[in-house]
Amino acid sequence: MTPSLEIRPVTGIGDVRPGDDLAALITTAAPWLADGDVLVVTSKIVSKAEGQLVEIPLDEPAREAAREAALRAETARVVARRGATRIVQTHHGFVLAAGGIDASNVDPTHLVLLPKDPDASARWLREELRERFSLDVAVVITDTMGRPWRLGLTDVAIGAAGVDALVDYRGLRDTYGNELQLTQMAQIDQLASAAELVKGKTAQVPVAVVRGFAVRFPREHGSGAAELIRGADADLFSLGTAEAVARGLRAAADLPDAPAFAPAGEPVRLPDLPFPTTRSVTVPPNTVAAVVVWSPAGDLRAAAEAGRRAERLRAVLAADGLATAWLEIEDPAVLVGDLPHGGVPLGVLAIGRGSLPSL
Amino acid sequence: MTPSLEIRPVTGIGDVRPGDDLAALITTAAPWLADGDVLVVTSKIVSKAEGQLVEIPLDEPAREAAREAALRAETARVVARRGATRIVQTHHGFVLAAGGIDASNVDPTHLVLLPKDPDASARWLREELRERFSLDVAVVITDTMGRPWRLGLTDVAIGAAGVDALVDYRGLRDTYGNELQLTQMAQIDQLASAAELVKGKTAQVPVAVVRGFAVRFPREHGSGAAELIRGADADLFSLGTAEAVARGLRAAADLPDAPAFAPAGEPVRLPDLPFPTTRSVTVPPNTVAAVVVWSPAGDLRAAAEAGRRAERLRAVLAADGLATAWLEIEDPAVLVGDLPHGGVPLGVLAIGRGSLPSL
Repeated sequence: MTPSLEIRPVTGIGDVRPGDDLAALITTAAPWLADGDVLVVTSKIVSKAEGQLVEIPLDEPAREAAREAALRAETARVVARRGATRIVQTHHGFVLAAGGIDASNVDPTHLVLLPKDPDASARWLREELRERFSLDVAVVITDTMGRPWRLGLTDVAIGAAGVDALVDYRGLRDTYGNELQLTQMAQIDQLASAAELVKGKTAQVPVAVVRGFAVRFPREHGSGAAELIRGADADLFSLGTAEAVARGLRAAADLPDAPAFAPAGEPVRLPDLPFPTTRSVTVPPNTVAAVVVWSPAGDLRAAAEAGRRAERLRAVLAADGLATAWLEIEDPAVLVGDLPHGGVPLGVLAIGRGSLPSL
Repeated sequence: MTPSLEIRPVTGIGDVRPGDDLAALITTAAPWLADGDVLVVTSKIVSKAEGQLVEIPLDEPAREAAREAALRAETARVVARRGATRIVQTHHGFVLAAGGIDASNVDPTHLVLLPKDPDASARWLREELRERFSLDVAVVITDTMGRPWRLGLTDVAIGAAGVDALVDYRGLRDTYGNELQLTQMAQIDQLASAAELVKGKTAQVPVAVVRGFAVRFPREHGSGAAELIRGADADLFSLGTAEAVARGLRAAADLPDAPAFAPAGEPVRLPDLPFPTTRSVTVPPNTVAAVVVWSPAGDLRAAAEAGRRAERLRAVLAADGLATAWLEIEDPAVLVGDLPHGGVPLGVLAIGRGSLPSL
């Protein structure tokens, strides 16, 4: 039978200051800590012990400016913003509001940053407990984060030692014989959430202990929480929707006139094209179709309008993963047969398979 | 002192079939269930008891077609796709891979859908336990979901009764007197994650009990898990990045020629404009600047090129939240002074404050 878990709050740790000895504070507050326990520690007290604090003036506008500077320093990349909200990816790789910088549970003259290297902090605390207190425990360092699609915050792991970030069920079979797929559980995040249930936000309960978790301690310290970071390239949501729409608009203004086409592979489905197609000109390799952008002779405004329409067509095609080359016309005479009487060719758009630009 | 939590697995429930009496199954397997417990139930067994199953052929391609049809039926909106992965918003409002449809822990001839109304299922189970077994417990129904930015899955709540979805710390003060802001914890998601730690994926442990959670039972059943659904409008990540980039490209092809401008408010910062500005023509209200799109007389290709450049400029400005109106020129003579010698005006672009299109 699967054993029960127990989640115990660790009370009485009190205020933590730079240089404080966390291992000693925790073992004093929780003399019952035992081998095999998972120690779940709020990053705030790790940051404070490590001196990850920034001084901040009490009065505006200097206060806001200092906050802004701190956020800039923590930010590797802005992921999304709306009004005063800024979701950023930190130098650690975490994506979260305000770069994890916090003004709660600290005196008003300081901001608390995340630990510099939370996995290293977790390993260090685990080592301290092992070497000085002969305790073999796993350590999870947590922060509180929001998430897309669901309201409310949850605690997740930003550092870990002695417990792997993921537990992998892939390849195992259920009782029906079905192979389980895509099932890697983020167990350290679930440990963080479980611990938060006894921590609370206003009481000083920055540490909880999960006892009875069937953790097979990994050799050394395990993967660390950094394993949970999904690279922006592998993420379907690497950018806020508004930011990505803006990127698409900018891409439309920046479509190259001479892209290379990818081999077509499967048949390409083209939308209705507002210009006549042609086979009269030499086109780049892998061209799927080519159209003539044209105007009536002598009508400059119609030519401008045709140019506008051509550029719009390129944007629509790009949205469908089709690239377009803009070909200057060397010999207009060869195209005349493709156009209405009196039509003058202005350029040729060659269409081929591309990819969404700017991704 | 904050009390400890205990998380107990409920074993021995065995296979659940349509029409099974969940309350009886659970109380038989967990005769120790007590008032004040939080019962955390995997949605899979709720779906099975409720008959939320779809028959599926064993052989391809019919199997894939049936899976496809089931997904279409569950989908309210496609949020993102890449290769075979599809992230959708279901009719419930949940955003998750494959619409929550699952082929694991069920015989190979069936797919399991999510419960039709998981909050109603939770209320119903809670009522059953109260009325037939005199047990006053809270119920959380869970599913396993992925999330952006972080690898690995976690269990979250899709239904709840007897415990509120969110616990709200806003307005409370920490021990330093700082007011806590934006701190609404998704406690039912954390209960779901905590329970998963004793459930596992292959063993038949579809239910766990959280004992000692300081839950103040809400009047009636509480908010339900539906409270956690963030509307697409309020979500900074309502669409996959690739889908949003494509939307931006389509928006670039669809910029209206006669938008209304919003009042400018703060000063508008314009980029370098590739056309000369003009004050010679009548422009729409709230216009910030107007430029003349022009070409040399008699040069149709240059006119087409000017049209293309104009449309690109509009896309870049739109990305910055600036709208553009394309004005036909009534009297070209009035613009001649704004242009180089021999230049012919083709149109005027008026620029004003707008918003990102298509959001």
